[in-house]
Amino acid sequence: MERKKIAIVGTGLIGGSLAIRLHEKKLSSRLIGVDADPDHARKALELELVDEILTLDEAINSAEVIILAIPVDAMVSLLPGLLDKIDNQIVIDLGSTKSQLADAVKAHPKRGRYVATHPMWGTEYSGPAAAVHGAYDNKAVIICNAEESDDDALEWVKHMYRKIGMHLLEMEAHAHDLHAAYVSHISHITSFALANTVLQKEKEENAIFELASAGFESTVRLAKSNPAMWVPIFLQNRENVLDVLNEHIEQLKRFRDSIQNGKESELKGLIEEANKIRRIIR
Amino acid sequence: MERKKIAIVGTGLIGGSLAIRLHEKKLSSRLIGVDADPDHARKALELELVDEILTLDEAINSAEVIILAIPVDAMVSLLPGLLDKIDNQIVIDLGSTKSQLADAVKAHPKRGRYVATHPMWGTEYSGPAAAVHGAYDNKAVIICNAEESDDDALEWVKHMYRKIGMHLLEMEAHAHDLHAAYVSHISHITSFALANTVLQKEKEENAIFELASAGFESTVRLAKSNPAMWVPIFLQNRENVLDVLNEHIEQLKRFRDSIQNGKESELKGLIEEANKIRRIIR
Repeated sequence: MERKKIAIVGTGLIGGSLAIRLHEKKLSSRLIGVDADPDHARKALELELVDEILTLDEAINSAEVIILAIPVDAMVSLLPGLLDKIDNQIVIDLGSTKSQLADAVKAHPKRGRYVATHPMWGTEYSGPAAAVHGAYDNKAVIICNAEESDDDALEWVKHMYRKIGMHLLEMEAHAHDLHAAYVSHISHITSFALANTVLQKEKEENAIFELASAGFESTVRLAKSNPAMWVPIFLQNRENVLDVLNEHIEQLKRFRDSIQNGKESELKGLIEEANKIRRIIR
Repeated sequence: MERKKIAIVGTGLIGGSLAIRLHEKKLSSRLIGVDADPDHARKALELELVDEILTLDEAINSAEVIILAIPVDAMVSLLPGLLDKIDNQIVIDLGSTKSQLADAVKAHPKRGRYVATHPMWGTEYSGPAAAVHGAYDNKAVIICNAEESDDDALEWVKHMYRKIGMHLLEMEAHAHDLHAAYVSHISHITSFALANTVLQKEKEENAIFELASAGFESTVRLAKSNPAMWVPIFLQNRENVLDVLNEHIEQLKRFRDSIQNGKESELKGLIEEANKIRRIIR
């Protein structure tokens, strides 16, 4: 397919890394950056993530494809008005929650031009300087409510994701949010809470620094993640997140009770149960 | 210093990886393996982790240095009797808890020949086949109650750890166990409990497999760890582990309450607090 003029709204980690990849894979004839934060816009241009910076309205008029890579609360505010303004452009979002957004535009006359997606890639860093080469490769992308998108829009979006190395899954938006709570959102909460636990208990920060093993770093890594991204995710996906978080607290209490009561075989059973994750994660 | 004849008791991940490193760094003239599990012993020999397999008594008679790399409950049972049998050999343990062991041999007439250590290295795998090259390099090792060890034994152990690339820290055994609960033991519990949470909630295992991002894998990685190693660690370090685990449950409840009540700025504050871990973990 021929290259397209693509606008990236939000030139941080997610949008910036995608911009690099769109260029690498010859999907874009020109990359336009849009960013509410002038420092991010300047940085994205300086790093050559994008070819030029425009305002959102300029970008809508100039681009054939508009990709939204902004926090999910901003997404819900922005998308309906953006669809009001477009003609035949393709609009894609990369957000981590899907239900509220899907519901917000369900009845919009331009709904067909929009494709709801969630590429399962990210790091704990944020901003244009955090953008990396080779992102998204070999990861899954979920396309939600695909039947609500126009065929040509859907076809191009699938082409784009395949070309950057992702494997496609389709899912209904509410099912997506449920699974995302289980395999992504809860991990971030446990990591944030673990960091707070250790910072609370271990007053000798030097001891953490000196003693932290690779295991500790791996479990606490996500605690560096950006609140501007994660607060709206947890709040938009409130019901599912609370459900899995309550289960997690119950599971921790089972460990606590078996340790407290010195129940060796019960504790062994809990760990053997956890070991079953080996079946799933190599 | 001249190379020594070294016996490794327990030829799994920890002992096996150390055996490789002792050979790589020309610290051993001969490596003797001892293992209660005949399959492990055979495998360790087959993989050439060690030069020969002997019984514990044969190894005691034959070696100049005896290194214990077995679960911490077996360590407490074994060490006093082993010290009864030695002459002038150096005995080292690599266990993750230190108080019970230190207390068990405090008054032993051969206490001076023993050096209590905890090298802060490991992976989530176990057994001789999990042993890797280059282990321990650039990590911390804690030597506990160093003043109870003979000078010559302590000097050789420090020499060994420096030569395999570790940086040395000294700590009293009870202080060690407190810090280890904070920076290592709690991470394992959160990871085990997270695996159990997700396995409990997400009945579509295929969804975990398909959707799991690098973030999920990183937080759940430690859940593959071996119960034979971890059950005795949690039970020996019961008080400290319960203390930090209770704090962790409280921290999770703070996340739960702020999500439940839609308290955006409170949730943001919790995440910003967690972000401070960036100061410590790069």
